[in-house]
Amino acid sequence: MTAKFGKVALLGIGLIGSSMAHAIRRAGAAEHIAGYSHRAETLEVARGLGFADSLSTNPVECVKDADLVVLATPVGAFGELAEKIAPHLKKGAILSDVGSVKGAVIRDVGPFVPDGVHFIPAHPIAGTEQSGPSAGFAELFDGRWCILTPVPATSDAAVEKLKAFWQALGSQVEVMDARRHDLVLAITSHVPHLIAYNIVGTADDLETVTEGEVIKFSAGGFRDFTRIAASDPTMWRDVFLNNKEAVLEILGRFSEDLFHLQRAIRWSDGDTLFDLFTRTRAIRRSIIDAGQDTPAPNFGRGEKKDK
Amino acid sequence: MTAKFGKVALLGIGLIGSSMAHAIRRAGAAEHIAGYSHRAETLEVARGLGFADSLSTNPVECVKDADLVVLATPVGAFGELAEKIAPHLKKGAILSDVGSVKGAVIRDVGPFVPDGVHFIPAHPIAGTEQSGPSAGFAELFDGRWCILTPVPATSDAAVEKLKAFWQALGSQVEVMDARRHDLVLAITSHVPHLIAYNIVGTADDLETVTEGEVIKFSAGGFRDFTRIAASDPTMWRDVFLNNKEAVLEILGRFSEDLFHLQRAIRWSDGDTLFDLFTRTRAIRRSIIDAGQDTPAPNFGRGEKKDK
Repeated sequence: MTAKFGKVALLGIGLIGSSMAHAIRRAGAAEHIAGYSHRAETLEVARGLGFADSLSTNPVECVKDADLVVLATPVGAFGELAEKIAPHLKKGAILSDVGSVKGAVIRDVGPFVPDGVHFIPAHPIAGTEQSGPSAGFAELFDGRWCILTPVPATSDAAVEKLKAFWQALGSQVEVMDARRHDLVLAITSHVPHLIAYNIVGTADDLETVTEGEVIKFSAGGFRDFTRIAASDPTMWRDVFLNNKEAVLEILGRFSEDLFHLQRAIRWSDGDTLFDLFTRTRAIRRSIIDAGQDTPAPNFGRGEKKDK
Repeated sequence: MTAKFGKVALLGIGLIGSSMAHAIRRAGAAEHIAGYSHRAETLEVARGLGFADSLSTNPVECVKDADLVVLATPVGAFGELAEKIAPHLKKGAILSDVGSVKGAVIRDVGPFVPDGVHFIPAHPIAGTEQSGPSAGFAELFDGRWCILTPVPATSDAAVEKLKAFWQALGSQVEVMDARRHDLVLAITSHVPHLIAYNIVGTADDLETVTEGEVIKFSAGGFRDFTRIAASDPTMWRDVFLNNKEAVLEILGRFSEDLFHLQRAIRWSDGDTLFDLFTRTRAIRRSIIDAGQDTPAPNFGRGEKKDK
């Protein structure tokens, strides 16, 4: 199975789209990379960076003759975009995406997919807190997981082809159904983002503690949350609006557990606190062992260790 | 004002105590560094690392003739330790600590401080998720803040001396009262730690999502929380038991704000989400500008950027 496509159309060239372009170049995984953005300024930046072979503000032009089309805008824009491009998709092409929710993508995009086009939703679990075409880099997907959520009728060969493509870009690939994806990601990504946004907001709102103090003393732990709370606002608004059910379920669990801890503090139940704090330490170890985070203290932030 | 002491006694040689020893050596800020641990194994490790001039399992021996005594065990042990060493403190010595709470330290240690000893509680806002004598390094305090919370009657000269000492170790120093410290730290450190411990616990408990999935897909955001949820369990149990009032107050605010967001998701109020997500991005920028975190994407975790 070759991972190589003729023309790849990236509809959206922000952090993920531009990183895909860099990684495709590195892997030689396409003959032609076409990029689309609805903003001329974004295309101007992309042109300067040179990661695409062609660029257009017209999605129809971008997908013309493409063998792989990837929706890479915020997921809230997928439906309208799919409706526009659907009649112009090449027979036999793969239509995919990089959205952080999958059920909603099947709901919004699926109805427009023409016969003969293979629709395979996908989600690379990778990113940074930066956004836009200049934030992309080829190594973003190295060692990270990409989840494909094909609907049952999907051609196995098309799934294998897309799988090989993401492997060529550096990813490990897993296939699961959309509903499970949305639940798993609610806990590993969506709720953590919401909680990070929330605590940074709470700190910003407190009139009893100044913003200057919050910033100065952020190395006590708070600063860790500000990284993911600096993620793209439009993308994340769309994630929460499109994965309500799973996010609300996990949030309910989180709050229940937090009240349990709050009660332990109020009643000086040190054992409950100690037992949880010991258990969570082991999870960090497993994530490092699985190669999904750095073992360096403080994420290796550059606060050196002299030995 | 010279920052140099004759003998410095570090009661506790875990991450903070051992980092102080390394930083004192680097700065030449003491003629003699004495270390204490109640565990012989810990002293054995410390002996191998060579960061102290003398080591003992007897705190009384450790503080003998010391000009600066620093309590650096978990704060829950401070009272008992203070009672033991108090009669043996040298006239004119400074007694300080590195505990993450300050009101409780004044409550527990203050009553034992003999006349002629300068008691100045302190808290360096620095650390990593690692613990023990081998986790320490000289650069830990560089550019971070150390907060001193002297009680009103404290000698200005002693405060200035301790301030110069922490500056020599690389810190910036701020003086505030203990009550304010405990409130500010509840938001910048204590509640963030509790929330991180909580979400890692919630994820670990979910029977609908496997631990393997949580680990594999942790790069979606979850992994950021596991770092601080890997911090020392004893130390953090003691923090929560000793800063109840402020932690419970801030937790109340956090939960109220989280319910507000939860409701916005349920009712598809995208504007509320978008507005918050935009505001929090600015805080990250301020923390980076203040030199309290790295500007590198993903904390510069080693996922390179090819440009």
